Parts: sequence; C-alpha cells; structure tokens
Amino acid sequence: MNYKMIARVLGMVLLCLACFMLLPAAVGLAYGENVSAFVLSALISAALGFGLTRLRPGRSTIYAREGYLAVGLAWILVSVLGMLPYLISGDIPRVEDALFESVSGFTTTGATVLKDIEHMSRSGMFWRLFTQWIGGMGVLVFMMAVMPMGGEHSMHIIRAEFPGPTVGKLVPRAGQTAKILYLIYVSMTALETGLLMLGGLSFYDALLHAFATAGTGGFSTLNASLGGFHSIYVETVAAIFVLLFSVNFHLYYGILAGRWTLALKNEELRWFAGIVSLAVLTIGLDLWGYYGSLATALRHAFFNTAMCISTSSFNTVDYTLWPEYSKWLLLLLMLVGGCAGSTCGGLKMSRFMVLMKAAYGELRHMSRPRKVYGVMIEGRQVKPETIRAICLYFILYMFIIMLTTLIVSTDGFDATTNFSSALACLSNIGPGLGINGPTGNYGMFSAHIKLLLSLVMLMGRLELYPILVLFLPSTWKR
Amino acid sequence: MNYKMIARVLGMVLLCLACFMLLPAAVGLAYGENVSAFVLSALISAALGFGLTRLRPGRSTIYAREGYLAVGLAWILVSVLGMLPYLISGDIPRVEDALFESVSGFTTTGATVLKDIEHMSRSGMFWRLFTQWIGGMGVLVFMMAVMPMGGEHSMHIIRAEFPGPTVGKLVPRAGQTAKILYLIYVSMTALETGLLMLGGLSFYDALLHAFATAGTGGFSTLNASLGGFHSIYVETVAAIFVLLFSVNFHLYYGILAGRWTLALKNEELRWFAGIVSLAVLTIGLDLWGYYGSLATALRHAFFNTAMCISTSSFNTVDYTLWPEYSKWLLLLLMLVGGCAGSTCGGLKMSRFMVLMKAAYGELRHMSRPRKVYGVMIEGRQVKPETIRAICLYFILYMFIIMLTTLIVSTDGFDATTNFSSALACLSNIGPGLGINGPTGNYGMFSAHIKLLLSLVMLMGRLELYPILVLFLPSTWKR
Repeated sequence: MNYKMIARVLGMVLLCLACFMLLPAAVGLAYGENVSAFVLSALISAALGFGLTRLRPGRSTIYAREGYLAVGLAWILVSVLGMLPYLISGDIPRVEDALFESVSGFTTTGATVLKDIEHMSRSGMFWRLFTQWIGGMGVLVFMMAVMPMGGEHSMHIIRAEFPGPTVGKLVPRAGQTAKILYLIYVSMTALETGLLMLGGLSFYDALLHAFATAGTGGFSTLNASLGGFHSIYVETVAAIFVLLFSVNFHLYYGILAGRWTLALKNEELRWFAGIVSLAVLTIGLDLWGYYGSLATALRHAFFNTAMCISTSSFNTVDYTLWPEYSKWLLLLLMLVGGCAGSTCGGLKMSRFMVLMKAAYGELRHMSRPRKVYGVMIEGRQVKPETIRAICLYFILYMFIIMLTTLIVSTDGFDATTNFSSALACLSNIGPGLGINGPTGNYGMFSAHIKLLLSLVMLMGRLELYPILVLFLPSTWKR
Repeated sequence: MNYKMIARVLGMVLLCLACFMLLPAAVGLAYGENVSAFVLSALISAALGFGLTRLRPGRSTIYAREGYLAVGLAWILVSVLGMLPYLISGDIPRVEDALFESVSGFTTTGATVLKDIEHMSRSGMFWRLFTQWIGGMGVLVFMMAVMPMGGEHSMHIIRAEFPGPTVGKLVPRAGQTAKILYLIYVSMTALETGLLMLGGLSFYDALLHAFATAGTGGFSTLNASLGGFHSIYVETVAAIFVLLFSVNFHLYYGILAGRWTLALKNEELRWFAGIVSLAVLTIGLDLWGYYGSLATALRHAFFNTAMCISTSSFNTVDYTLWPEYSKWLLLLLMLVGGCAGSTCGGLKMSRFMVLMKAAYGELRHMSRPRKVYGVMIEGRQVKPETIRAICLYFILYMFIIMLTTLIVSTDGFDATTNFSSALACLSNIGPGLGINGPTGNYGMFSAHIKLLLSLVMLMGRLELYPILVLFLPSTWKR
C-alpha cells in the first residue's frame, strides 16, 4: 500500500478545499460580514494540506485499492474540515449538527438538522449550498482537472469517486476527462443561474440554487425551500434542471462531439424517461382527487417525481400528506435514482436495468432450464462478473438500509421516519416520509444517530466501497 | 410440454384433497354437525380428480419446467377447491374471504380476514387448521408418499414444492424420501399434541394447534390466539415446536440415521441458533423498560422471535405497541425466515448465509481486486451459478414486496400496514405491524387486494417460480 501517495493526494485535496473556502469569504466581504471563520478554516486546511503534500512518495502509481482508500479518507477529511466555518462562525454551534450539515452538503443529500436556516450569515449560506456544487462532481475529480497528477493510474480515483457501475474515460487522459466533465458542469450551472434570474431571483439566490440543483442536492436559502419563491416558472426550471443533471454526463460529451442520435438512443436515458413519465402520470392521477384539478396534480407530480428520482430535496408542498400510492412510488424512485455518471444518488438507473433484466432472465431460465439468458444493455452482452457485482451491490445496499433503520430505531421515532431516514441518507435524497419530511428535519435525532447517518450519506455518495473498505481489517494490513 | 402428465398429477392431487376433506367431515359428525359442505366439496374434488386421472399420458416423465407448472397449478386448484367447505357451510360467506383464508391456510401464512373465528363450526375450524398441516409439508409430497408415481423425474416435483435453494434426496427414490419426511412430520405433530394436552388442552385443541405449529402457520381456534389459554407452559411448548419445525428436516433424518454430531455441527443450524439467541437477547433488553421485568421481557422476546423467524403467527401480546427497535428486528426476522427444507417461509437461512458471505466476499474483493473470494458453506465451495440464482431470488423477492406494497397502497391504508402486508404474505408470516397486526386482520382490504395477497402468499410458499412461470408467455408455447 502506497501510504505516502495517499497522503499526498489527501494533501492536494485539502489545498483545493482551502481555495474553495476563499469564495464564501469573498462573498462575506462583499456583504460586509465578519469572515474570520472562513479565513481561519482555510488556513487550517491549507496548513494541513501543505504538510501532507511535503511527503515524497517513492512511486506515484495508484492502484484500485489505494484509489478507494484515498477517496474514502478524502471525503471524510473534507467533511470534517468543511464543518469548521459553521462551527467557528457560530452559524451551527453543535459539532454533530455542523458535521451532519457538512456531510449532507458535500454528499449532495440535502438533509438538514436546522429548523431555521434563514438566520444564517450570507457567507455561511453560500458555503452550505456551494458544498453541494463541489460534492456533485467530486472534489477529487476537480483536483485532477486543475492539478497535474503524476500517476498513470489516477483513473482509479475518478472511478472510485464518480457514480455508476462502470466509468469510461471520455478521452485517454484522466486529467482531460476531469476537465471536460467540469466544463459541462460549469456551463449548465451558469445556464440555470441565468434562467432563474429571468424568473426574478437575485444573482445570489439564482447562483446558490443553481449550485444545489447541479449537485442534485436541494439545499435552499429559504425555510420554505423553492416553495418560498411562489413561482411556477422557478419551480419548473429547477425540476427540469435536476432531471438534466440526472443524465449521464457522457451523453452531453457525446452531444458536444456531434453524436446527437447516439446520445438520444441511449438505453439508460430511455428507461429514465420512461420511468419518469410513468411516475408523473400515475402520481398525477392519484393526486387528482387530492388537489381537485388534474393540472395542479400533474404539476406537483412532475416536480416531486423529478426531485425524488434525481435524489434532490427541493420542495414546494408537503408530500407526506399525499395518498399512500404516491408516497410509496416516490420512495421507490428514491431507491432507484438517476443515471450512472450523473450527480445523482440512489442505485442508479443502469444498475436497476441490469437487475430487472437479470431477474427476468432467471425467471425465463426457470421455465426453460437448459437455456441461460444473458443480459443485453445497449445491444451488448453484460459480463457475468458485472452482473454479479451489481447484484451484490444491491444486496449490500439493502442490508445497509435495513441495519441503519434498526439502529436508528433505538431513538424511538416511528418506523416510516426510521426507514425513510436510512433510505434518504443512503440514496442522498434529503427529506424522508416521516418527521424527517419536507416540513421537518433531522434535528430530533440524538448525536450518535446523526453521526451514523453522516457515515451512511458518505457511503451512498461514494457507492459504498470507499467507505466500507475503511472498516475492513485486511485493508490496513501490509 | 407433457400436458397430459401434468393433468394426471393434478387429478391425483385432487383425489388426495378429497380424502383430506373426509377428516373434518368425520370430526363434524362426531360433534353432531351438519357435514354436507364437506361431503359435497369432497365429491366435487373427487369427480374433478377422477376425470383428470383418466387422461393417459404417452410418457410419464416430468422435467423441471413441468414440475413447476404442475406444482403451481396444483396449489391454485387446491386453494380454490379448499375454500368450498367455508363457502358452502356459510362459515365464510364471501368468495374473496374464503379464498384468502384457504390460501392462507395451505400456504401456512396464518393471515386471516375474519374478525371473529370462534363462531365457526367445529368441522370448519378443524379444516382451517388442518390445511396448515397439509400445506406445511406439501400436498404433492404427500401424494408421492402414498401413491406410486411412474415417472423417473418426480424429484422435480419435490424440488419445486419443498422450500429451500437446494433439495437433496434423503434416499434414492423420491417416493421413499417423501415417506420419511411425512413420518418425521407426523411423529413431531403427535409429540406436540401430547405435550399440549399435558398443559390442559383438550385433544381437539391440542391436535389443531399442533397442526398449525407443524406447518409453522399459526392459525388458532381462539380470537386471542395462544394468548387465550393464559398458560406460559402452552406458549413455551408452541414456541419451542415452531423452532423445531424451522429446522431442516434432513437433520432429523440424520439424527434418526445416527449421525448426531454431523447434524448438530450443521452450519445453517448454527446460524439459525445464533440469530435467534441474539434477537431474543437484544429484544429482551429493549423490552425491559416496557414490561418492567427482564424475565417477562425475555419471555415475550423468545415467543415472538420464535414466531417471526419461523414465520408462524401465534400471538400472546400485541407487539405493534412495542418499542421501534424490537418491531423492526421482528420485521427483519420475518424476511429471513427459518432453515431450508423446513416448513417455514421467508428467504430461508441458507440463502441469507450465502447472501451475507457473498456480499462480504465482494467487499474484500474491492479491497484486493486481484483476489476473488468464493463462498464456503459447510466447508464446501458454493457454485457460482448457485450464488447467482440466490442473489436473483433475493432481488425478485424484494421487487415483489415493493410492487405489492405499491398496489396495496391504492387501498389507502398507512405505509406500515401496506409494507408489512406485502412482506407478511410473501414470507408466509400472517400478521404484520399495522392494522394487520396481531389484534387486527386483513378484512379491511378490498376484494382485489385480497386476491393479490392470496397470489403473493402462493408465490412465497412455492418460492416464487412455480407461480411466476405461469405468467410467462413462453411457458405456454409448445
């Protein structure tokens, strides 16, 4: 294990983090706020980062295991240091709350422990929503986009940090791939900021909500979330953009490279579009009676379907009051999530496709035992080891949800709250279907449950393994 | 597809069913009741069975697919004809209720749609609990024990009907295997009947509760279930026996054959014992405050752990009022279920072991990608195709629970009721954690939801495929 190289990567990540922290400091200055909390946090991060980068590894190669370890540790470090501004400024005075909010930001979950967010400083609020933007594409991917990494195998880092069962390189070099990804990300964020400003939002509000949309996070500057703007236009822009950010970024690169038709024929995209349409339609019909008008029902169905499947947490209405069918379907959408290679959480659509096809194949195999049915995705046979890995991923995912629910239960809240907390944190959604719903928050949980849920959010964002391997004794053996 | 042979098997099953129906008729006569409902039902079954057995198949071989089809259709036929006594006698006047109760009996689920069962006739009650005994070991296995089946491949039928991922033959001939299984089954039922009579129960009550225990069903003759006897002795005997009936029957055969140590060293049994102990201990501690006494807490923890993991539904207290940790753990036990080759529902302990080991292996593989970790059970490597089949079984299981919950939601009850109805029916448990809990029932659901849940119970009892293949168009193609 190349510990020195891992330490060096961590050091570089912390230097990036320190730079990121200067942005809210600048915002604070512009609004005449005391920004010493950000300056101090940035200095701590920079000092620590500088110390770590002093280590000179013998070789700069990074293998898969080291990629996982580096990414897992980096995200824990970033979350811990990222909570310092909240703590030092006093915006969030308790450690477990500040950590939860920091993790929820970076993992783009959007769950909050705060009852009243509107009292926060401008710079603190900027940091809160900016972390969702950073976390969406990943701080390590960012680092590779801006810093030359000596190693040949730095693709292992992108692979460990970027969502989805398989990550292809867009272009041969990892650094170049990272640059292209960030270019698309920045452009789309800028476009949404502009569109939100057309809806009457200030530049500050528009930019911050675009940050939260881009990461499919869903933090808002208002207690009433997007509903506080009372604008169907703003709500529709946000819903469309969370869906756009739920699409595999490879497709955008394909479109940029002129391969329009290939991108639109993409099977995962078609499943995604199909499931969204079906959900909007049936939830709309289910809500017809509730809202008394089909148009209003469809509008709310569209907005909340978009939020749940993209694992974002903006809200305009309290869906915990909806009929049971709609609520359960939203829960299933939260489990599935958006496309691989997007900023979404959840299982990812491509894994869901493989699971569905493999299960159907097994059923047909039972009917004709001499035939073995493979899984075809995009017209190509999926390798048996990939199917195996995806099945086991799903199994681990369900185990973690069930075990987390069990531990969360010791706090004594109702089963819907417990189960939806576990699911909403692992799938990086944010609000659940109980006390943790759109009008509630996670503040009522005890400190150790907040810590557990923070860990679960990190697991979800990094697709389990980078965090889980940290608990494996064999990882630490030479 | 050998349709004539399938028809012949179905005919023989119906002849068996007709014979079974004569038993409650005899009981009814002994109590001076009008037994025309049973006589008429038996005549209908016999006539239909006689007609079907008249078909002379060209060859008597049964392949795997035909085994599934025969078993799936046989259970549907038996459930439909098995509801006739309830309907004709007027014990249960509505078709959907009678069918639900019949399916719940044969599948040993133990869910009921009846508010008041104590008003039923003696013969009707006998039939209700006797169906759980028949269903526990399986009507086709019974048929093979008593009737010579020409075919060479009749093991496919045992395999399709008997729970567990792998079914070994005890002895070379399927008919002989079936005889031994029933011998153990009858002996243990007789033993429990005797023990219950020592606790002060009448022969009728003791035998009927032994029937329901043997099938790990849990129907009772009393509205208050076992709690109505107010006897810790009776409750303990039932709890011990549901656990005994949750053990792989192969082990009992091993013990009979003198291989004591081998049986006790069985890995599945040790996992089962370990999980039961852990659950009793932690639930006991969780309930300590609730009951104010650790002894009382442990007693209720033991009884309900035994009931949930064995997927039986006797009850003495209303556990829906328990603290959340205990309730969620009971739910997880319901999902796992007892050992393979027992009369339990649920995923089965051996599948759970494979899933846990495979998931852990995948995690270690992530940490050391060059190594592939196999799954060892009983000191032997599990074949990759078996692991694959078990993973896909779990995935299908979870899909069915989620989809069933979604459809059940349209009836408008709360999420806990909907989800636990789906789980409790698929895992053949009986009561859930909501309105369908120990003091409630399934009567409030609309007719089509009762039909759906009946189908789900059949899926659970037959381990999905014999029912699912019926919906596959390719099954019906020549």
